[in-house]
Amino acid sequence: MARNREKKPQRPKALPPKGFRDYFGAEVAQRNDMLNAITSVYHRYGFDALESSGVETVEALGKFLPDVDRPNEGVFAWQDEDDTWMALRYDLTAPLARVYAQNRNDLPTPYRRYATGPVWRNEKPGPGRYRQFYQCDADTVGTASMAADAEICSLLSDTLETVGIPRGDYIVRVNNRKVLNGLLETLGLAGEGATVSSDDILRTVDKYDKVGEEGVRQLLTTGRTDASGAEIDGVGLTLEQANIVLKILLSKGANNVETIANLRDAIAGSDEGGKGVDELEEIANLCAAQGYGEDRIVIDPSVVRGLGYYTGPVYEAELTFEILDEKGRKRQFGSVAGGGRYDDLVKRFTGQAVPATGVSIGVDRLLAALREKGRIDAQSKGPVVVTVMDRDRMGDYQAMVSELRNAGIRAEVYLGNPKNFGNQLKYADKRESPVAVIEGGDEKERGVVQIKDLALGARLSAEIETTEEWKAQPAQMEIKRGDLVDEVRKMIARAEGAV
Amino acid sequence: MARNREKKPQRPKALPPKGFRDYFGAEVAQRNDMLNAITSVYHRYGFDALESSGVETVEALGKFLPDVDRPNEGVFAWQDEDDTWMALRYDLTAPLARVYAQNRNDLPTPYRRYATGPVWRNEKPGPGRYRQFYQCDADTVGTASMAADAEICSLLSDTLETVGIPRGDYIVRVNNRKVLNGLLETLGLAGEGATVSSDDILRTVDKYDKVGEEGVRQLLTTGRTDASGAEIDGVGLTLEQANIVLKILLSKGANNVETIANLRDAIAGSDEGGKGVDELEEIANLCAAQGYGEDRIVIDPSVVRGLGYYTGPVYEAELTFEILDEKGRKRQFGSVAGGGRYDDLVKRFTGQAVPATGVSIGVDRLLAALREKGRIDAQSKGPVVVTVMDRDRMGDYQAMVSELRNAGIRAEVYLGNPKNFGNQLKYADKRESPVAVIEGGDEKERGVVQIKDLALGARLSAEIETTEEWKAQPAQMEIKRGDLVDEVRKMIARAEGAV
Repeated sequence: MARNREKKPQRPKALPPKGFRDYFGAEVAQRNDMLNAITSVYHRYGFDALESSGVETVEALGKFLPDVDRPNEGVFAWQDEDDTWMALRYDLTAPLARVYAQNRNDLPTPYRRYATGPVWRNEKPGPGRYRQFYQCDADTVGTASMAADAEICSLLSDTLETVGIPRGDYIVRVNNRKVLNGLLETLGLAGEGATVSSDDILRTVDKYDKVGEEGVRQLLTTGRTDASGAEIDGVGLTLEQANIVLKILLSKGANNVETIANLRDAIAGSDEGGKGVDELEEIANLCAAQGYGEDRIVIDPSVVRGLGYYTGPVYEAELTFEILDEKGRKRQFGSVAGGGRYDDLVKRFTGQAVPATGVSIGVDRLLAALREKGRIDAQSKGPVVVTVMDRDRMGDYQAMVSELRNAGIRAEVYLGNPKNFGNQLKYADKRESPVAVIEGGDEKERGVVQIKDLALGARLSAEIETTEEWKAQPAQMEIKRGDLVDEVRKMIARAEGAV
Repeated sequence: MARNREKKPQRPKALPPKGFRDYFGAEVAQRNDMLNAITSVYHRYGFDALESSGVETVEALGKFLPDVDRPNEGVFAWQDEDDTWMALRYDLTAPLARVYAQNRNDLPTPYRRYATGPVWRNEKPGPGRYRQFYQCDADTVGTASMAADAEICSLLSDTLETVGIPRGDYIVRVNNRKVLNGLLETLGLAGEGATVSSDDILRTVDKYDKVGEEGVRQLLTTGRTDASGAEIDGVGLTLEQANIVLKILLSKGANNVETIANLRDAIAGSDEGGKGVDELEEIANLCAAQGYGEDRIVIDPSVVRGLGYYTGPVYEAELTFEILDEKGRKRQFGSVAGGGRYDDLVKRFTGQAVPATGVSIGVDRLLAALREKGRIDAQSKGPVVVTVMDRDRMGDYQAMVSELRNAGIRAEVYLGNPKNFGNQLKYADKRESPVAVIEGGDEKERGVVQIKDLALGARLSAEIETTEEWKAQPAQMEIKRGDLVDEVRKMIARAEGAV
């Protein structure tokens, strides 16, 4: 056995690394189309493209990984020949901070930029969780104006509608970190001397969607037993403190005016909290002035956003239509984009605080949503396949293909072994080809070709019931060689109309 | 001093890693437009998109790096948590071989695929040489037919014309590795028992453009003293052998028929060489049948292509117009794409040889060529800038911007500190803004706004000579608030017409 194994030639495994995957055909084209649609909105809003490299120095990336539980992990890193540590970017915001710090004297201020591309996370892969995925971001650097935040919210709204999410099927929800943080400071629960971690409080509040009001109350105080029977430790607030936190969380009223009044009542005299509510009110007014009603952008005090670096307004775009989850239960599709204001990222490089705000769209989740809504033509358009009846006349077939392509019709000649004609039709089938072109020696002599409607051929027995229909829609027809382009175009149009 | 240094806070350097760079605004958009144009041609030819991840296992990538002098180096690699070595892909062909081997039972055969994206090389960076750059490839896997190679050549020709290289400004040159390799084998200069390296011979022949016929003769035999006085070793052929090799290299005739006749004469009875010439003749005939004349695709025995893994036809797209190099000397722009047939890449995984052929376009070089030819609008179109005269009326200004954007006009409100109006116009200038919109309290009361043609304002003193012209083309005008969209659109159109 051992000797046998040694003899075996060692072949590499034909697999991507763990947690990586490939995308084929229509998947790639659909994502590309969606990214083009998104960036066209970003561009119309005055944002300029930036493409930084996939690789950054580890020191430039810093320790701002979204997963705050493991701030030092999560990146793919290695050492350059001169011992500098390099890493693949884990998001598009950290590179923006580096680029802005590097070019701040040449870039306009404020600097509106968009970026799109893959990011990498060195995390444990799971079902649907990959270690490389796309982001598509828009950020405004260099202004503290709430108008920048309001603009990001309207940008998000316009973008979702442009890619095909109808109004009413999404909502952009806005909150402000200062509200809860200010309250916690006033209560002595954050800042110096705090006995509990305000991160823990935020994380607990973020579970509201899952565990509800009473669940959050338990988790904020003494703990809770979850559905599986496991004991989960509480954060350690008193019941009174927990109720004050929950009052913020439950401030959402029937409209923005009511919500803002509730918040003012709930912040318990905190200056910072009051500032946060003022900012929310300003954003609400700016959105209204631009014609974005509360059916599109709404103040919602239950929005948290996990990312540690946000310092002011935070926003989240949620898709509100229902889908069936893997267990067949109805649930809302959920979040497809999020962002907020982060005022300290550039400071790491320059020592000066530079206010900034921005949003990141989860490209793959948004694509999944569009497929769910039937807004993406999931079917790829296969090419016309010119079959090869006579191997020596490849030039004739190539000429046909050229004519079709020059007329803008996607077309290819069969390049496999032409011996078995059935294999050629099977190939055309696999390619989802609408039309096959056939020219044997006999046809060549008579100056004709056969064209075959492959989609119709497949549907014939299922749909066509009378002989008249059959005659009216022949799956295969003989045409003059000179009419190839016109007749193929007609057949494709007929096939598309029939679908 | 030392104590002082210790006190200084350690800030990260705001720089990308050595050999990496950022791309801004129009550069990104232009590349994106060009990639979309290229892939639309690939798609029309029946090629399907494939996007594999940027990361592969080192064992899957193999040792096929183009730089044959250092086959083991040149990649950025690191170990995964389970000790698997991973690396950034160095081209798009090695991942294709892995993907095809992995999915060969599900993919159509032959499999035409295109791919585009960044690749990474761990090489010493230099001026204009970056360690991340774009490639855009088309390959056909699973067919030995020369029709696949001819198709790649016509694809290349169509692609160049589609992106804006006019016919006559480029040439696709085709050769076949079998010709020279076959000859070398017949001469005992390749294969088992050869005393010289056939790679060295290929590399020397590849210098023909630089050193000319006599230079290649010297380098193939005893060596040569270059312009700087340095002695360069010869490969060690006899003069007779060198002349036989040179005869191949110089076989190009007045047309393909003559070239092929010359080659048949030059291969000195080599079977393999004869096969190579047959293949070239077949490609020439297929291209002619498709209407691609020798002004677009031509047989040229001097094409070598450095890559070690080519086994048959090789091709290269060269731009033939002249540019001035950095020293002000005229030279041809040179190669922008290349490829060929490689039959052994998939075999590494499966043990079975899978014939394949394909091409890679050097995206950044082609972009440079288009800029050189003035085929790309190098100027970016800046947004309309709505200035802020009254900080408290941000909602009014945001509403204007919304109207403009909804009408498809790129527009933004000034988000910096509005105190100094001069700074707002400087900002608009930096943004290459065509039009600034101004609405002070007085205008607001009267229901009007001022719009300012910024390009015209900048040109006024230089171009406009009479007062009549000045009056006919005022750089700033007062319009009704309700006419904002129409009047801005007119002003932009006028500005574009005037350029």
